[in-house]
Amino acid sequence: MTINVRKFSIPEIFFGSNSLKYAGLCARRLGAEKIFFVSDPGLEKTGWVDKIFETLEDEKLNWVYYSNVVTNPRDYQVQEGAELYKAEGCDVVMALGGGSPMDAAKGVALVVSNGGTVHDYEGANRIQRPLPPMIFLPSTAGSGSDVSQFMIINDMSRHVKMSIISRTLVPNISIIDPNILVTKSRSLIIAAAIDALTHAIEAYVSRIASPFTEIQSLKAIELIISNLPEALADKSPKALENLSIAGTAAGMAFSNASLGLDHALAHSLGGVLDVMHGLIHPVLLPHVMRYNLPACTGKIADIGKIVLGKTLRTDETTALAGIEKLEEYCQSLRVATRLREIVPDRSQLARICQMAVYDSCLLTNPRSATWEEMLEICEEAW
Amino acid sequence: MTINVRKFSIPEIFFGSNSLKYAGLCARRLGAEKIFFVSDPGLEKTGWVDKIFETLEDEKLNWVYYSNVVTNPRDYQVQEGAELYKAEGCDVVMALGGGSPMDAAKGVALVVSNGGTVHDYEGANRIQRPLPPMIFLPSTAGSGSDVSQFMIINDMSRHVKMSIISRTLVPNISIIDPNILVTKSRSLIIAAAIDALTHAIEAYVSRIASPFTEIQSLKAIELIISNLPEALADKSPKALENLSIAGTAAGMAFSNASLGLDHALAHSLGGVLDVMHGLIHPVLLPHVMRYNLPACTGKIADIGKIVLGKTLRTDETTALAGIEKLEEYCQSLRVATRLREIVPDRSQLARICQMAVYDSCLLTNPRSATWEEMLEICEEAW
Repeated sequence: MTINVRKFSIPEIFFGSNSLKYAGLCARRLGAEKIFFVSDPGLEKTGWVDKIFETLEDEKLNWVYYSNVVTNPRDYQVQEGAELYKAEGCDVVMALGGGSPMDAAKGVALVVSNGGTVHDYEGANRIQRPLPPMIFLPSTAGSGSDVSQFMIINDMSRHVKMSIISRTLVPNISIIDPNILVTKSRSLIIAAAIDALTHAIEAYVSRIASPFTEIQSLKAIELIISNLPEALADKSPKALENLSIAGTAAGMAFSNASLGLDHALAHSLGGVLDVMHGLIHPVLLPHVMRYNLPACTGKIADIGKIVLGKTLRTDETTALAGIEKLEEYCQSLRVATRLREIVPDRSQLARICQMAVYDSCLLTNPRSATWEEMLEICEEAW
Repeated sequence: MTINVRKFSIPEIFFGSNSLKYAGLCARRLGAEKIFFVSDPGLEKTGWVDKIFETLEDEKLNWVYYSNVVTNPRDYQVQEGAELYKAEGCDVVMALGGGSPMDAAKGVALVVSNGGTVHDYEGANRIQRPLPPMIFLPSTAGSGSDVSQFMIINDMSRHVKMSIISRTLVPNISIIDPNILVTKSRSLIIAAAIDALTHAIEAYVSRIASPFTEIQSLKAIELIISNLPEALADKSPKALENLSIAGTAAGMAFSNASLGLDHALAHSLGGVLDVMHGLIHPVLLPHVMRYNLPACTGKIADIGKIVLGKTLRTDETTALAGIEKLEEYCQSLRVATRLREIVPDRSQLARICQMAVYDSCLLTNPRSATWEEMLEICEEAW
């Protein structure tokens, strides 16, 4: 008897303009008395942090604010946060931010409930005990951390971005307010959108994609391709809302279907070089898609059909033309599209690839890859 | 400041062939010691009930079996079940069945945790306290009760099908095993598929549809139209699996976007005449869609595009042609398509419509309707 099961798990979602007003109410509903609140100085400056504090005050809730989080959040920051959570007797975790504050917040929730340090849980399905309730408010339309089972933390001694994957890391509630995107810079909107696009594409071709994740992937790809130009041109509220929907849909997809070779490499690159995650995909993704093509021609053709707006004579020509169009699309955004623009020194590539083979994301890539094959992909992208 | 929030909440989903093997494991994970298990004699005969019991035994779990459930489950059956749950000291509710056993099980979970009787909670958002953990295994691809916030119970003294809607009625886990559909009769597969199709269509045009529900609606419509004929012809496993996916997607859509006029009338008809729910939609839906057309021409055209496989010159012509094609489609299934075939006596229609205006589903219909307007729709469908 074959058991062929696909799991699909997402948080409760509150979506829409000014939905952040619900932050206090949601915390109250989850039984909060003292909230451990994580964000970053950038969001403080734009006033969003204060807006959340107001909703907590409205509900007469107490909170502790932790903001010592950097891009690619670090193991010792999680540990510092966890000490503070315990010292202050917090009971609910709330985060406002991009992937970094949200993943740091997940780390704190993990350590305070399961003990030890984040390193103890590297890999998939290694968390045993339930976490405190988590309410996340994403400030970018990209990381998907607010809907996902993933947490990526930098191990500073090994210079490795650890992937920690567990259903218990899905927050209880995700409050998605597209208005927050209005205060984001052009380059952040691009980085987040390309990250979401990559989530959608890698999840779509994943070995464990399901009909439930596939429709989310395709919707995300379609929305990003058709709304990013307008969002960049004039920050139209409709286009930003559509990017938020896309980021969320892509998050639902990759959380349940996992990712692939591009993310395995991107995590390794990020660990060694501290490169901003969203900058890596325009460089790697087209080459990874060409590498994967023999293993999933039909699926890459589905993506090509959306990118091109039509199908060509065969799946293979549609797929290849779609990848080319994606490359042109990234070039038109004026972001780095060659690996040499973001990696200072070619000699580091071998080590980066040797580490990437241990990343959990590689397990679900449609085509298996050795570190030497990954190095070839990097050389092509150089 | 406008707050325009859409909520989206679904259970954790286990989907796939032989996934029912996970029933015991899921109950264990939710802390079960003694399970209140609801199913019906039909599912006993086909052996599925025993298969679930085996998975509970594998996990050394105890259970109490309740099977006194009929089509359109009744208030006194819920009460009887709740007494049994309490007397036996159960702690988790599990149901295997179509909408009737699942809704009866929800009723039991509600009464044992919130007190009183189901009548006390009629309407939307009236449940205050959390329910015991619920694990549902749908045996038809239609009701969507396993993923939804809805519970429909027959009030036997008023002859009203009460709609009770609350986020707390979303089960914790839905285990969807398409293999169970193999033992279903042709007429049950049709009734369930048309129920799911109606869920998808009413949710799509609902006043509170969101991008998250809309993609589920459109996917469900597409899958039902393209897979029902094959599922009926030879019960192909692929077609049955696709109907399961469609039923689940439609459930996610209507649970979060609610329904409309067709369901308001169907509940009222079911309450007065005890008609099987799935038989009512082929009769009413086309007429309800024509009534709604002025309020949502573009959206009904989207549906028409899927049903027809193409768009016509205008939204209105596409929408109207799509409705016609849907009518032909129902006729080809050899089910009742005129109201007189299922309602014995025309004189009851006025009373049915007068009761239908109080159904919560009417609130989200894209076009408002008085009972007299609903009566006109019934007359057209007669």
